[in-house]
Amino acid sequence: MALMKDLRIHCNLIFFPYICPTDFHRISNGLLFFAKSKTFTSRSPYSYLKMKLKNAFIITGFFAAISLSAQETPRMTPEMTQVWEPVSRIVTPGRAPEAIIPAPSDAIVLFDGTDLSKWQHPNGNTPEWVIHDGYFAIKKGTGDIQTKQLFNDFQMHIEWRIPADVQGTSQGRGNSGIFIQGMYELQILDSYNNPTYVNGQAGSIYKQSPPLVNASRPPGEWNVYDIIYTAPTFKADGTYRTPPRITVFHNGVLIQNDFVIRGTTEWIGHPQVREHGAGPIRLQQHGSMNAPINFRNIWIREL
Amino acid sequence: MALMKDLRIHCNLIFFPYICPTDFHRISNGLLFFAKSKTFTSRSPYSYLKMKLKNAFIITGFFAAISLSAQETPRMTPEMTQVWEPVSRIVTPGRAPEAIIPAPSDAIVLFDGTDLSKWQHPNGNTPEWVIHDGYFAIKKGTGDIQTKQLFNDFQMHIEWRIPADVQGTSQGRGNSGIFIQGMYELQILDSYNNPTYVNGQAGSIYKQSPPLVNASRPPGEWNVYDIIYTAPTFKADGTYRTPPRITVFHNGVLIQNDFVIRGTTEWIGHPQVREHGAGPIRLQQHGSMNAPINFRNIWIREL
Amino acid sequence: MALMKDLRIHCNLIFFPYICPTDFHRISNGLLFFAKSKTFTSRSPYSYLKMKLKNAFIITGFFAAISLSAQETPRMTPEMTQVWEPVSRIVTPGRAPEAIIPAPSDAIVLFDGTDLSKWQHPNGNTPEWVIHDGYFAIKKGTGDIQTKQLFNDFQMHIEWRIPADVQGTSQGRGNSGIFIQGMYELQILDSYNNPTYVNGQAGSIYKQSPPLVNASRPPGEWNVYDIIYTAPTFKADGTYRTPPRITVFHNGVLIQNDFVIRGTTEWIGHPQVREHGAGPIRLQQHGSMNAPINFRNIWIREL
Amino acid sequence: MALMKDLRIHCNLIFFPYICPTDFHRISNGLLFFAKSKTFTSRSPYSYLKMKLKNAFIITGFFAAISLSAQETPRMTPEMTQVWEPVSRIVTPGRAPEAIIPAPSDAIVLFDGTDLSKWQHPNGNTPEWVIHDGYFAIKKGTGDIQTKQLFNDFQMHIEWRIPADVQGTSQGRGNSGIFIQGMYELQILDSYNNPTYVNGQAGSIYKQSPPLVNASRPPGEWNVYDIIYTAPTFKADGTYRTPPRITVFHNGVLIQNDFVIRGTTEWIGHPQVREHGAGPIRLQQHGSMNAPINFRNIWIREL
Repeated sequence: MALMKDLRIHCNLIFFPYICPTDFHRISNGLLFFAKSKTFTSRSPYSYLKMKLKNAFIITGFFAAISLSAQETPRMTPEMTQVWEPVSRIVTPGRAPEAIIPAPSDAIVLFDGTDLSKWQHPNGNTPEWVIHDGYFAIKKGTGDIQTKQLFNDFQMHIEWRIPADVQGTSQGRGNSGIFIQGMYELQILDSYNNPTYVNGQAGSIYKQSPPLVNASRPPGEWNVYDIIYTAPTFKADGTYRTPPRITVFHNGVLIQNDFVIRGTTEWIGHPQVREHGAGPIRLQQHGSMNAPINFRNIWIREL
Repeated sequence: MALMKDLRIHCNLIFFPYICPTDFHRISNGLLFFAKSKTFTSRSPYSYLKMKLKNAFIITGFFAAISLSAQETPRMTPEMTQVWEPVSRIVTPGRAPEAIIPAPSDAIVLFDGTDLSKWQHPNGNTPEWVIHDGYFAIKKGTGDIQTKQLFNDFQMHIEWRIPADVQGTSQGRGNSGIFIQGMYELQILDSYNNPTYVNGQAGSIYKQSPPLVNASRPPGEWNVYDIIYTAPTFKADGTYRTPPRITVFHNGVLIQNDFVIRGTTEWIGHPQVREHGAGPIRLQQHGSMNAPINFRNIWIREL
Repeated sequence: MALMKDLRIHCNLIFFPYICPTDFHRISNGLLFFAKSKTFTSRSPYSYLKMKLKNAFIITGFFAAISLSAQETPRMTPEMTQVWEPVSRIVTPGRAPEAIIPAPSDAIVLFDGTDLSKWQHPNGNTPEWVIHDGYFAIKKGTGDIQTKQLFNDFQMHIEWRIPADVQGTSQGRGNSGIFIQGMYELQILDSYNNPTYVNGQAGSIYKQSPPLVNASRPPGEWNVYDIIYTAPTFKADGTYRTPPRITVFHNGVLIQNDFVIRGTTEWIGHPQVREHGAGPIRLQQHGSMNAPINFRNIWIREL
Repeated sequence: MALMKDLRIHCNLIFFPYICPTDFHRISNGLLFFAKSKTFTSRSPYSYLKMKLKNAFIITGFFAAISLSAQETPRMTPEMTQVWEPVSRIVTPGRAPEAIIPAPSDAIVLFDGTDLSKWQHPNGNTPEWVIHDGYFAIKKGTGDIQTKQLFNDFQMHIEWRIPADVQGTSQGRGNSGIFIQGMYELQILDSYNNPTYVNGQAGSIYKQSPPLVNASRPPGEWNVYDIIYTAPTFKADGTYRTPPRITVFHNGVLIQNDFVIRGTTEWIGHPQVREHGAGPIRLQQHGSMNAPINFRNIWIREL
């Protein structure tokens, strides 16, 4: 925040005060965006902002000048960690089973179609997401939900569905995510005929690894992720002794093959290595203007 | 074979000649067994032999004495690479889908229910295994079958069924196997209420790695293997530069988690490292007295 | 370069022409820097530039405004991939042997103290670096040198010395590097009492991995790197099937422990995955104003 | 021991009692050997036994017959886990430094030439090994010694010397070993012109991995091992979650390249996976009739 203070002083000294924003925490490198919340809920309001910024570009530009003269190391922008090519090849998965396949006998059933008793808001409150007939749906504005139980290595099964009437494009279309150990995001998005950066599409390890192929089903149909996750171990200095690793099938098609996760999921900048122990499965209530994404048949087997 | 010659001489010198076998290549450490064929088809006729050997034990015993005095390094027996404990925990998998899930659009369909055109006998002949309505069955005495196409890294799906009227016990009950790259066996067996050595039960990498759990369905029901395989690379001297690795789900339950394969599948003795390139998928026609095992819905995706 | 053209047009339209630089290839995000050469020879003239830029900051700032209004995805700057903390702990290595330890009998001796016959300029010319009594020294302005022979997996030994009269600071002090397979840089720098970003100090995999500790000897003394390198293998699509891996000892102290290299060494931006086969060992003639760095006793064993 | 009881009964029933040994715990498969001690101190008295057994072979043979008729799964012999080919290629290492290279500043010095204060007998007693001028020597009959401190991941340096007047052949010539975490043996042996099984020669991970090459110095000269060791982690069921790994240089030459250790070091039979935490470095006082092996300059850096 010291930087922001410096910027405001510079701005008032050099320019007319009325173009010097007071909402400094929303500014970085001359591009306005919302501060990234600690629960990752506010990612990518970019397209929304673009509308508002139509006439603000020149001011923004001047302000960027100040930003760059005030610091020698400008901050990264979200775009700098987007990868757009090569586009993941499309694979049509085999059709889904007609009925839900129940969990193996040794699995912890996280949602069996009836209640959210295994889940809570990250602040410990009862989740406000909405239970329908056999599935539940994100309720906008109520925040993420996460498992009460914490996990290390596991096999997990989860089904999700983008509502058929989904609106928006790119990251603004059906955006959610599964934060493994509360840290590492396996992206949920409508990636059926919805181009975006490939390391941000459905099945990506967000901003780290695109899916090997795009095996998405269209909005209105259920998608399935089957996940094998190996938790990291840490050295005394807090860095990885062995990094986290993940294998994912999307609708039965291998999309992540023992990928070595580099660190935390960051919307801006590089993955960070942060020491942690067992962690929850967190489902993201993304800030974008989506129809409420659905989930069902969630189970996990500790390995 | 020098050993065998020595043994015969010893035998004739010390014992009555009529107990000195001439068929020396079938003898090791005083236990008769059939020579292991190059196509692995004759593994484990052990229970069969036990009947024949009922009255031969004393002679066998005496002969073993000679064997051990004539050589300082006796050969290993099949039992020496069996592991019996700990017994893999039983997991009841979720029930199977009601109908077959077809292959993803980019898969090579190896069997779609109609014909064996993608398969051949290891000698190149047309396979004689029998096609039924939507599946095929092993035909005893006709040998293994293998894919015409050769593979390296892949994702594979295969379904198999032990006939409901299967007879026998242990390795003699519903024994077959999937030889990956013609080298490394993922075991097929009726392991539903059928104790055997754990590194020889269904889902084991035979004689190398027991399954993490026993997720077998009973005879008469279809089992599913979903496999991720990474082929080895070799150094100039023919040893592994990177070893083969395998992950397997059995009926949707993880049973091999990135297991590092140590070498070829050997009924007797240690795995061997043998240089090879791309190889076929070979299905074993095991020599034991099984009911004919069934297969269906086989597809593979090259990675 | 299309970007640069746009920028020039914008600049001339909006500002006084005389502040619109013509040397556009030296501009990015409002910070001047030299174009990164394909042979990585011109990295980090940053401190040098800072002197020249003392009075140019306001112009630079204005220009940055244009840059940012002309494109929505500004390019990364070199600073964005610098990591400054935590600072690698200092370890004083055991003193060096009094005499050179010669190579093992099966090593390829790349420099035995007498001639550069195993080396060439990247363009194939005879290298102009200077041979002294038992070592050779970088000759500024003559470019890098690299081995004629190409390598895959290897063990390598190399000794290097920063001249005692080295000048400069940070990346401008004793900067060279070993480009493994011509792609992946193990950094050479005077890191004895010379702070810089940790993933750019001696023993770092440049811009990817800081050394575990700082085991540098002071200028005027010989440093030793002992390296184990495993070359990558590639999938059909040109991405890594198995990534490159490296282990490094600096003066006998482990500083890289089986680090998985993420891709090519980039001064600006993220490592790139680029398909390649066997490659040379290339020694960098860095563009900074260093005293000529010395090398001796270089050998390699193919694994 | 139930087996042994059965054998004794069989023996007395069928043979003359006087050839039925009472010392049954020393018998397996008709070959006498000493029970393997828990501290691995009594490995391979085989050549010693051969003398004593010259006239015992026929009895042994007959006894083997009983052994094999009494049980269907004979125990493995030490020879069954010996690998004799291919013989590791000989590499002449560079000559040793003239003087000892001292430890890095952050190393724990386990022996600096003066005292054994960092070591103890496995039973906790003061070690009786003999300190000479700058090195110490094994004292036969006094057992192993091990560090008081326990370690996990580390870099280690150790120098050892086979006395110039060493006698014996194969495993009977200069045999000792470094048991890492008290579990996993890096073999010490005179392997300079002394053929033995390759997975038992100097630099082997005993009975698991031959050295990549044979870089031994002759008796009377100091050998050096530089080791990088990564300790295993365990799953709840006591099996490896991540296995132990080891890299070794012998006299500066890479001989183990990130070898994945399969389990405990066993003279007879397969490596076992046994759960453990941090462990000592143990130096073996082998039972064979060696000249007393020397050690010096031992240090370790925790990673």
